[in-house]
Amino acid sequence: MTCSKESLRLQYQQIRAHSLSLASGLTAEDQCIQSMPDASPTKWHLAHTTWFFEAMLLRPYAAQYRVFDASFHYLFNSYYEALGPRQPRPQRGMLSRPGLDAVHAYRQHVDAAMEAWLEDLDDTQWQALQPIIVLGLQHEQQHQELIVTDILHALSCNPLLPAYRHNDAQPSAVSVATGPVRWLAHDGAMVDIGHDGQGFAFDNETPRHPVWLQPYAIADRLVTCGEYLAFMDDGGYSRPEFWLSEGWATVQSQAWSAPQYWLQGDDPRLKERGGDAGWQIFGTQGVQPLDPHQPVSHLSFYEACAYAEWAGARLPTEFEWEASCSASELAQAFDFVWQWTRSAYAPYPGFRPIPGPAAEYNGKFMVGQQVLRGSSAATPASHGRLTYRNFFPPAARWQFTGLRLARDL
Amino acid sequence: MTCSKESLRLQYQQIRAHSLSLASGLTAEDQCIQSMPDASPTKWHLAHTTWFFEAMLLRPYAAQYRVFDASFHYLFNSYYEALGPRQPRPQRGMLSRPGLDAVHAYRQHVDAAMEAWLEDLDDTQWQALQPIIVLGLQHEQQHQELIVTDILHALSCNPLLPAYRHNDAQPSAVSVATGPVRWLAHDGAMVDIGHDGQGFAFDNETPRHPVWLQPYAIADRLVTCGEYLAFMDDGGYSRPEFWLSEGWATVQSQAWSAPQYWLQGDDPRLKERGGDAGWQIFGTQGVQPLDPHQPVSHLSFYEACAYAEWAGARLPTEFEWEASCSASELAQAFDFVWQWTRSAYAPYPGFRPIPGPAAEYNGKFMVGQQVLRGSSAATPASHGRLTYRNFFPPAARWQFTGLRLARDL
Amino acid sequence: MTCSKESLRLQYQQIRAHSLSLASGLTAEDQCIQSMPDASPTKWHLAHTTWFFEAMLLRPYAAQYRVFDASFHYLFNSYYEALGPRQPRPQRGMLSRPGLDAVHAYRQHVDAAMEAWLEDLDDTQWQALQPIIVLGLQHEQQHQELIVTDILHALSCNPLLPAYRHNDAQPSAVSVATGPVRWLAHDGAMVDIGHDGQGFAFDNETPRHPVWLQPYAIADRLVTCGEYLAFMDDGGYSRPEFWLSEGWATVQSQAWSAPQYWLQGDDPRLKERGGDAGWQIFGTQGVQPLDPHQPVSHLSFYEACAYAEWAGARLPTEFEWEASCSASELAQAFDFVWQWTRSAYAPYPGFRPIPGPAAEYNGKFMVGQQVLRGSSAATPASHGRLTYRNFFPPAARWQFTGLRLARDL
Amino acid sequence: MTCSKESLRLQYQQIRAHSLSLASGLTAEDQCIQSMPDASPTKWHLAHTTWFFEAMLLRPYAAQYRVFDASFHYLFNSYYEALGPRQPRPQRGMLSRPGLDAVHAYRQHVDAAMEAWLEDLDDTQWQALQPIIVLGLQHEQQHQELIVTDILHALSCNPLLPAYRHNDAQPSAVSVATGPVRWLAHDGAMVDIGHDGQGFAFDNETPRHPVWLQPYAIADRLVTCGEYLAFMDDGGYSRPEFWLSEGWATVQSQAWSAPQYWLQGDDPRLKERGGDAGWQIFGTQGVQPLDPHQPVSHLSFYEACAYAEWAGARLPTEFEWEASCSASELAQAFDFVWQWTRSAYAPYPGFRPIPGPAAEYNGKFMVGQQVLRGSSAATPASHGRLTYRNFFPPAARWQFTGLRLARDL
Repeated sequence: MTCSKESLRLQYQQIRAHSLSLASGLTAEDQCIQSMPDASPTKWHLAHTTWFFEAMLLRPYAAQYRVFDASFHYLFNSYYEALGPRQPRPQRGMLSRPGLDAVHAYRQHVDAAMEAWLEDLDDTQWQALQPIIVLGLQHEQQHQELIVTDILHALSCNPLLPAYRHNDAQPSAVSVATGPVRWLAHDGAMVDIGHDGQGFAFDNETPRHPVWLQPYAIADRLVTCGEYLAFMDDGGYSRPEFWLSEGWATVQSQAWSAPQYWLQGDDPRLKERGGDAGWQIFGTQGVQPLDPHQPVSHLSFYEACAYAEWAGARLPTEFEWEASCSASELAQAFDFVWQWTRSAYAPYPGFRPIPGPAAEYNGKFMVGQQVLRGSSAATPASHGRLTYRNFFPPAARWQFTGLRLARDL
Repeated sequence: MTCSKESLRLQYQQIRAHSLSLASGLTAEDQCIQSMPDASPTKWHLAHTTWFFEAMLLRPYAAQYRVFDASFHYLFNSYYEALGPRQPRPQRGMLSRPGLDAVHAYRQHVDAAMEAWLEDLDDTQWQALQPIIVLGLQHEQQHQELIVTDILHALSCNPLLPAYRHNDAQPSAVSVATGPVRWLAHDGAMVDIGHDGQGFAFDNETPRHPVWLQPYAIADRLVTCGEYLAFMDDGGYSRPEFWLSEGWATVQSQAWSAPQYWLQGDDPRLKERGGDAGWQIFGTQGVQPLDPHQPVSHLSFYEACAYAEWAGARLPTEFEWEASCSASELAQAFDFVWQWTRSAYAPYPGFRPIPGPAAEYNGKFMVGQQVLRGSSAATPASHGRLTYRNFFPPAARWQFTGLRLARDL
Repeated sequence: MTCSKESLRLQYQQIRAHSLSLASGLTAEDQCIQSMPDASPTKWHLAHTTWFFEAMLLRPYAAQYRVFDASFHYLFNSYYEALGPRQPRPQRGMLSRPGLDAVHAYRQHVDAAMEAWLEDLDDTQWQALQPIIVLGLQHEQQHQELIVTDILHALSCNPLLPAYRHNDAQPSAVSVATGPVRWLAHDGAMVDIGHDGQGFAFDNETPRHPVWLQPYAIADRLVTCGEYLAFMDDGGYSRPEFWLSEGWATVQSQAWSAPQYWLQGDDPRLKERGGDAGWQIFGTQGVQPLDPHQPVSHLSFYEACAYAEWAGARLPTEFEWEASCSASELAQAFDFVWQWTRSAYAPYPGFRPIPGPAAEYNGKFMVGQQVLRGSSAATPASHGRLTYRNFFPPAARWQFTGLRLARDL
Repeated sequence: MTCSKESLRLQYQQIRAHSLSLASGLTAEDQCIQSMPDASPTKWHLAHTTWFFEAMLLRPYAAQYRVFDASFHYLFNSYYEALGPRQPRPQRGMLSRPGLDAVHAYRQHVDAAMEAWLEDLDDTQWQALQPIIVLGLQHEQQHQELIVTDILHALSCNPLLPAYRHNDAQPSAVSVATGPVRWLAHDGAMVDIGHDGQGFAFDNETPRHPVWLQPYAIADRLVTCGEYLAFMDDGGYSRPEFWLSEGWATVQSQAWSAPQYWLQGDDPRLKERGGDAGWQIFGTQGVQPLDPHQPVSHLSFYEACAYAEWAGARLPTEFEWEASCSASELAQAFDFVWQWTRSAYAPYPGFRPIPGPAAEYNGKFMVGQQVLRGSSAATPASHGRLTYRNFFPPAARWQFTGLRLARDL
């Protein structure tokens, strides 16, 4: 991908500003807490995305760059072994210092340095380093989604169930009329899967390669809350026959009986709202009544599989998803919920990580996780992509994750 | 104990103000974090001590009282089963809301209500309820010490090792000339132990009762850092013969090799301070070089016992401590470090908890803990007392805990 | 204590034979399994008690002694740090080898060597070492009780609930007529506590020393199953007001709702016995209907305290128990169940462990445990003693442990 | 697959007898112990494989069948939810009863019943049920391998390191001359993967379906101990750049520094064998010196991937393995070690579990595991197969698992 310096600078400004706007309604205290090892404080996200530009670009390539604070290299490295030791992930919530103000100053310092450095880059450097700058922006967009999912989890641990945002016109708040599922058939065929080189893609979407698909059908839309409720009402969480063995073990050990963030009407945390009004869902807007037409969200892979089994269907593979999405047949492919696929996260044939320290970006996570496709209401507007491969462990539920059905033909 | 309304009102104001002054150098973020289940956020301490007055006095006895926020009854209850369910202890750090400002407003609201209610109390009520008011103040003083110990632990989890305070003239910063230990002999005798009813005491200090003591000797001063270092240099942490069985198991499972907060000169967190300057200690003033004349602090009971065994001595019982302290023979009895005793925390003969919900204050913890006597540099000035029984589990090290030796005669 | 060589040799033979007889109904498989880290396989007990004689006497003092198997020194050391590393306690159940036959051969080898060595001991040696021989026999008797308690636990983990023994005339199988409790009053007095030097005692029973007792009353008999059932029926396990804080936490985390080994009539493991016949108790004779007149057994200290609180009483201290037992006033003091006391296990004033490697026998466990007095149906006949101090952690329930009430006067 | 009744009866006898022969050198104690939740006692394997015939065939289809012991249905069910509750997996080692003799009697009882029932089957029944009988035999063969792997693990937990077998002429004991790896190239092509319907296969090997392969090369032989040692000597276990993120975390948390069962020459368990003779490996024959020409075994998937990365290669996919093996190009494909592949265990397109309770046999495990291909020295002779898909979690090391390299072309 190539783009002009000017256009990239503009993108840089917009994307960097968007991170701050996501944090704008949150107090410094909100931005400091870590509710589980997998989720990070908002403040940490704001700092880490800044660290990425500093560590990957300014430190190695900007001769004039003055490091903002030497200790930040340790504090805000996420998982890059090649870049040295780091604050342990489960301890990110211990960082009351540096304070939020210092993190804001860090952002400004790095932004100014990036601006100046970009200005001075000659053409050869620009060609060589522009991909890392773009990667840094894509990286920041990934963390923008995590800012939302992680603060949602943190706020859900507060018995007051405070709303992250009010009055947002987010897709998840827009009721969607839902008709019966239409099954889109696909004949067996050889399809090309992966990124074609136009525009940005992560290394894990490459190389583009042929895959043979057996005949299948895929649902034109997502599974809804109403449909999922029918599964629950049919004993879904107490009938092992629908579940993968690990899924069933998790249901029992974690006492799951509904998607994450679903609250029964008699939940003590809802007491002050008056009588039992049936199922409620905690989301970015706070607690809202369950809307049966909305796509179901905050499911683990296990729950997605169990639902599909109950429905006499299965999850699509990531290849089926991409083939059908490529044919423009799928409604709700983007901007609602990430869609679990039946595909384990693995390297494409011929995959090589990008060189340099960013080699650790994707490849080293290729075991024990499942691919999700599409994008969610929390994904930044310009970030989704046909070939995008998101991935999470099968028990993860704090992301905006749902499903679309498929079946063999 | 009786005192005038006016004198109590003054005490109330002073003690309540002192809590805020202890938090004054801390950011809202600092005051929000919880570094382990046993330690609580500063903000929580500020709110809980306020809750105590609201729950024990204003709610039951002040007819005019308007509750500040109904949810606080759940959020800031510590462990009083009789007063309903509560935020789980390990989840206190999830409370980014209510924010620090709201907690300050809560304090002002309750303080104003207490002032007005006190004003209106008639004599009978005053006689009946004054002990609970005093208890609330003593309770707040206990939490003042915990504010210090808990924030010290939280800051110790930050690799920046930020100082809680600068420039304080705390006893722990005052070098103490130490001579050889003098052994104060005590003949076997019947002594009266426990509180005599003059002034305030917790229920666990009563009833006063006779105890027969066998002859013993007790050290006139505390064990110092220099003496403890000699134990370490003699292989103290690798020689099981000095340790209680549980202590030795803890040394191994927790990889203890020094008191909590001791840092070896080559600790990576000290890197930016230049070369290896030998043992350092992290304390309320930040990192300071070990002073061999200072009392050793932040020891577990296990470490205290192992040191004593190595030194050919033992810990005193709480009765021996009280008898010798009562005779005004002990230096450094108060204001340095709490002193582990060989006595398990158990009820005195005839002990009954105070009636009402405060019955849970002390009695229900009388198993599995050891008594500590004296007081520490973090104990509020007016809070120490000859008969005071502090208690912690034998593995606890984040309090200001040290030891004084004793031996049989 | 002194006794003749001949009498000791006889004792040795009888006690050693009794260990084997306790294992006689068990298969080699039964004797191999370990059901929890705190319980040991029967085979291990048989070997470890033999190791004690080998390690404490034959290896250091019998010049002619040929070690049976060098590896046994590692395999069958229990917790003696001074005698080198050892098989980790939770891994004792991994020792399918050496087989039971080899352990029997080991016993014979050591018994023969002991016999020969005893024969040859001159008078000086006899005086010096006889206490260790006696200690070894007392030690073996302690393990005889553990053989019973540990196999009972192991068999209780088998859904078949096999009986350890049939047809034994054990006290626990003898119905005991129970009248109303009589309260035996004791005036405040100075009493002498601890062993007086006549006959054997463990080091932890010494030195004998005066203790001042406040006036109290103690129940003439044990609490029965019927009485405990009344506590349960009154919501005992769901009312926090009766419980120590740690006890209540344990009740909830372990989901306790009855003493260990009590089975509700509809327990699935009882299905094949036909309809619901009410509470059953699993014991050495297998499953038996609850007998309301029997002393309640297999209680933790927490449960004993909660029962006492519910009953408006308390547990006796170990000193009260000893004083009243000494006066021959207590029925059921011995041979039924060990009786939890309110006393934490701590050294008597002037306590010193016996010298040599057996110093680790008792002293190093003097923290975090409660003293039990009396003896149980599983205690060997000649083993109980007025001054005997048994000790277990407060949550332990797999021993034959019950209670007797006391109260202040 | 069809075969004659007579031939099946013969197979039945041979396979059933082989299970007993595998246990023949083990004591009843050996056969009773469970060394970790993933491994089962030998006795349990002997009983469970018998239970399979009883539960899947005799109970539902043999009208005359008299159940041997009703409780065995609970005790020896492994994971079949449809067949009711069962002894929890981690508690299989608690089953000292039924004894080994009873399990032998159970086997004889079921074998006799199977023989009689087979005799009486009419043609329709034979056609319908013969696949389940064959499944039962394949199932028993799988457990035959587990008998070996599980007892090896159990014996490895014994500090005596007893040998499972002596004098066996097993492949693992036969030195294999190893030349340089030859890389077998494969052009991109469509290949048919999965079982073709001739002879037995598990449901997870079906349906046969086309897969497109990109060009690759695969090693003609397995990676050897000598080669793996070179990886170790090059810092393999301390260089994160070779490892998947989860693998690196496991290396650190488990302190891995060599394959399971490798012992350094100075291991204390080898002390009695004399001086340090370099690396030793504990195997079915006991401790043997490392033979550099032998295939490396007892590796996790993580270690296999890290080795491959270090070697500048990768693991083959299961499809590449099957395509090259099908072309008869691979040496050491069978009978040495199972070979980790880069393929996550997932359903083939169109996969449906076999109907009935055996539906739970394979399908419900299709998440979080990696496919292994080939077979091992512990696999029964007639059990391996080109299309066989073995599967284990990526951290598993107690199986006979190694690797073969591949690379992209």
